[in-house]
Amino acid sequence: MKKKKIYEGKIIGLNLYDLTIEKRKVRREIIEHPGAAAIIAFDEKGKIILVQQHRFGHGYILEIPAGTLEKGEKPIDTAYREIVEETGYEAKKMTKLISFFPSVGYNTEEIHVFVASGLKKKFELDLDNDEFISVVKMDLKKLIGMIKAGKITDSKTICAVMVYAAKKKLL
Amino acid sequence: MKKKKIYEGKIIGLNLYDLTIEKRKVRREIIEHPGAAAIIAFDEKGKIILVQQHRFGHGYILEIPAGTLEKGEKPIDTAYREIVEETGYEAKKMTKLISFFPSVGYNTEEIHVFVASGLKKKFELDLDNDEFISVVKMDLKKLIGMIKAGKITDSKTICAVMVYAAKKKLL
Repeated sequence: MKKKKIYEGKIIGLNLYDLTIEKRKVRREIIEHPGAAAIIAFDEKGKIILVQQHRFGHGYILEIPAGTLEKGEKPIDTAYREIVEETGYEAKKMTKLISFFPSVGYNTEEIHVFVASGLKKKFELDLDNDEFISVVKMDLKKLIGMIKAGKITDSKTICAVMVYAAKKKLL
Repeated sequence: MKKKKIYEGKIIGLNLYDLTIEKRKVRREIIEHPGAAAIIAFDEKGKIILVQQHRFGHGYILEIPAGTLEKGEKPIDTAYREIVEETGYEAKKMTKLISFFPSVGYNTEEIHVFVASGLKKKFELDLDNDEFISVVKMDLKKLIGMIKAGKITDSKTICAVMVYAAKKKLL
């Protein structure tokens, strides 16, 4: 296998790999990403906590809170950190739900989803200078309706919420 | 907005954008992707048609059939083309289910999901030289069980199957 580095940036990198699969030579264009954690969390009133943020090329998008793994950070620790940074809530416990790959064909990123419990509003938002986030709370039922109507366009939010709701028999 | 082109390849490109959002200067690392279509399809016996294929860094992954939009191609035409190429089945009709973004933060890709109907096995597989695919058929119920158990790791498959099953009240 031959690897050619094209780019290494703040969040993603890009490498080209020439490899042999089942005796055939193929080239793969691969985005290298450290992985991310995403969180399903409910406030004191049982509403799911979402964030609305500006996403390049997509406008303002409604998502579950999430963030990129820092160097050496375990996914569960990213989840504890990001829920505070993006929503101001602190979680007592994080329970693993599922992991998945957003783009299996050309991206190493794996997203780990946790369900937070024991939430307490503790902090003001602690956003990075390049983040533009507002918190939105809604009934899970309403969010599921929006997903079924095609109004939620972020794949991690669709995956996480639908699997959570199916396991809890809420669909 | 300033754009710097880093790479333009076979499937993806990479650009850096320096832009101003709400008066703050930010840089975005953006993967440019033409978009894709994915298909929910059932064979004559009512089993869902999946493909198992080798994915760089992830091994062999079980997915719904899907493929990248060719230049100027409409998503629905990609769906009609890919179901034949990847599974050998021809579909009479494609009905739009949902569209979503696999990685809202740094990737322009949008995946359009269609539900195929009127399927007929017509062709042998017509794979590209760098594709390694085998067809797997299973009961939708079994697939939903695998998704809930965390055994399906491809996000487009999770999104498409769970939204389809929820709309059909199969969960």
